[in-house]
Amino acid sequence: MKALPQPILEAIENLASLPGIGSRSAERLIFSLLKNESGLDQKISKSVGRLKRDIRQCQSCYHFCEGEICALCADPTRDDTVLCVVETPLDVIALERTHEFKGRYHILHGVISPLNKVGPEHLKISELTNRLRELSDLQEVVLAMSGSTEADATALYIAREIKPVFSGKISRIARGIPSGGELDYLDIGTIGRAITERREF
Amino acid sequence: MKALPQPILEAIENLASLPGIGSRSAERLIFSLLKNESGLDQKISKSVGRLKRDIRQCQSCYHFCEGEICALCADPTRDDTVLCVVETPLDVIALERTHEFKGRYHILHGVISPLNKVGPEHLKISELTNRLRELSDLQEVVLAMSGSTEADATALYIAREIKPVFSGKISRIARGIPSGGELDYLDIGTIGRAITERREF
Repeated sequence: MKALPQPILEAIENLASLPGIGSRSAERLIFSLLKNESGLDQKISKSVGRLKRDIRQCQSCYHFCEGEICALCADPTRDDTVLCVVETPLDVIALERTHEFKGRYHILHGVISPLNKVGPEHLKISELTNRLRELSDLQEVVLAMSGSTEADATALYIAREIKPVFSGKISRIARGIPSGGELDYLDIGTIGRAITERREF
Repeated sequence: MKALPQPILEAIENLASLPGIGSRSAERLIFSLLKNESGLDQKISKSVGRLKRDIRQCQSCYHFCEGEICALCADPTRDDTVLCVVETPLDVIALERTHEFKGRYHILHGVISPLNKVGPEHLKISELTNRLRELSDLQEVVLAMSGSTEADATALYIAREIKPVFSGKISRIARGIPSGGELDYLDIGTIGRAITERREF
């Protein structure tokens, strides 16, 4: 678009490469930055620029952290008898928000997806089996994958992989209708799972 | 949140300061940057960081530009007989997208808003009257303000201010129902304006 100078177009294009941000929202964001007088542009530039330099993966659970070991793995008050396997670091945050889980985590960094050329070797699955051999207090592995078919397949694969090295309980998070969900608006798969996996009242 | 290292928290907080981006979306954006391997983080950091350094306001219309004069003011093919007054640079882009307006622009950089302590002296209104004195070919000033009450008041104020220095036609963009708008869903103010300002078929 001829109406805008190159540096603005470039910034808009870069922001619009982020997932969920279209070119119109990117435009609005850049213009609000140009108007903003609190130095937000420099703050964003600096904090985004140093992100990858400062952040590593935890050597134990593969969550993001600054040092060798993340805050959750280093926390001695967490329950060593339960390990929760999740797809992404965002899932850890989501689970931590509930305050319902006090155990340890293991982050796969994805799901098996032949279409996107992601095989088991691209995920932290061998790292999980290695870790399970060392965790002597562990009694339960919770597979907390999302609701997609690929996630289901990944959970199945992992359950089979870890059985030879882990003799404890393997569970998965419950499937059913979400809180506040109206049957009328939910998809057939969700309602189907909710009825077949019904529990005693 | 204990679950995340400081550099990530900082980047999330900065992104979440942008309008329309909540902390949850900021989280998602930062995590996608951490996962992204095309160097998008550095591209965003650089282009956002240099934005304000490289961008100035056009000395004629106050649009954003790199040099002294913006591409639209420098374009000799534009129509010098019409000048369109808009609130923000984004409005210029919106109007340019329509390909319906070929004249010149003048950007106010806001509207008069006593609640937000924005008076006429904070906008490019005196710059507009000065400019009108010099534009000898000008025949029409179009006030292309948005539909808010403050914008209406600003348009009124500007019309009164420019009358002593400009004897040509002063118009404003049409008010009415938007394209694809169903009467049923539109607010009473819009329908009211559409019926009182009806035009011969």
